[in-house]
Amino acid sequence: MKALEEKILSEGTVLPGSILKVGSFLNHQLDVDFLMEMGKEICRLFSGREINKILTIETSGIAIAIACAAEMHVPVVFAKKNKTGNLSGDVYSADIHSYTHGNDYKAVVSCDYLGKDDKVLIIDDFLANGKAIEGLISILGQAGSTLVGVCCAVEKGFQGGGDSLRARGIDVKSLAVIDSMSDTSITFRAQ
Amino acid sequence: MKALEEKILSEGTVLPGSILKVGSFLNHQLDVDFLMEMGKEICRLFSGREINKILTIETSGIAIAIACAAEMHVPVVFAKKNKTGNLSGDVYSADIHSYTHGNDYKAVVSCDYLGKDDKVLIIDDFLANGKAIEGLISILGQAGSTLVGVCCAVEKGFQGGGDSLRARGIDVKSLAVIDSMSDTSITFRAQ
Repeated sequence: MKALEEKILSEGTVLPGSILKVGSFLNHQLDVDFLMEMGKEICRLFSGREINKILTIETSGIAIAIACAAEMHVPVVFAKKNKTGNLSGDVYSADIHSYTHGNDYKAVVSCDYLGKDDKVLIIDDFLANGKAIEGLISILGQAGSTLVGVCCAVEKGFQGGGDSLRARGIDVKSLAVIDSMSDTSITFRAQ
Repeated sequence: MKALEEKILSEGTVLPGSILKVGSFLNHQLDVDFLMEMGKEICRLFSGREINKILTIETSGIAIAIACAAEMHVPVVFAKKNKTGNLSGDVYSADIHSYTHGNDYKAVVSCDYLGKDDKVLIIDDFLANGKAIEGLISILGQAGSTLVGVCCAVEKGFQGGGDSLRARGIDVKSLAVIDSMSDTSITFRAQ
């Protein structure tokens, strides 16, 4: 998505440790009109596919998941990090290592909201080494739901997670794929 | 908002400790079409007021904030709980006690995304004792931004936070106000 690549170039900053900061529009301040455009683009990329639910993970996946769901008219389920007092009953869960924060956490989804009849698109803001997405795929497996595909706003292609999922036959589409980045330049993969 | 009251009655469950579980549509699974309707209603309630930004707090305030922002065509800023490696530079912050989780946390907003020219509507999913909202108001004060008003989806009127803010002259509107609840009944305040 050309407009997203341009926005990353104009507003993004590269921090040490291959962290791309896009807090001005994607994960601290949210440019909601632009998010809705991204939602439309995801809807277009997966048009013709039967999807009745979107799965994402808190926190920063929620915004783009809602933008896409508003266009597809399907509900969003977001995995919670660690179990809270508000999440009673049976849950599906997966252990995930966070590259950005350098810690491990448990992603949890209530069994009430995913089941055998669900045909699910996984959405997240970032795809780097793919650990969060793999956790969500494991949760879909526990629920007996069908994985339709994966769509992320920004894929860090050089960290390999997206290509490793594609090699397993999973339909992974990203709105922008970064092949390399430094504090002076960002190179996108041609799509 | 009558449709919200009906949805709370049909899908909500009251857990011990005056916790209202609305995970089927508001804070675990998200009924996005219904959220967009709530966003339109908030936009209607504050029509004629000059608002150029929405402030909320992660996680479950984000969904309804986006729904409203999509209608108002303004950006959302969400306060983060505790500071992460991804949030560099100067921040505004407030210490908040969570009633639901029984712990204290720090809400943080980067100084890049709030300033003197901002006219801000605060949005959240729940308003109980009002501690989270007071933290966000403190952050607006630090930024020199103007507080236009506060809108929450569900106010637990019996916990007093909303009325205490109103007594300070703050324009607080909630889509549904619960005056009392037990595991067998929920009574709404007439609006």
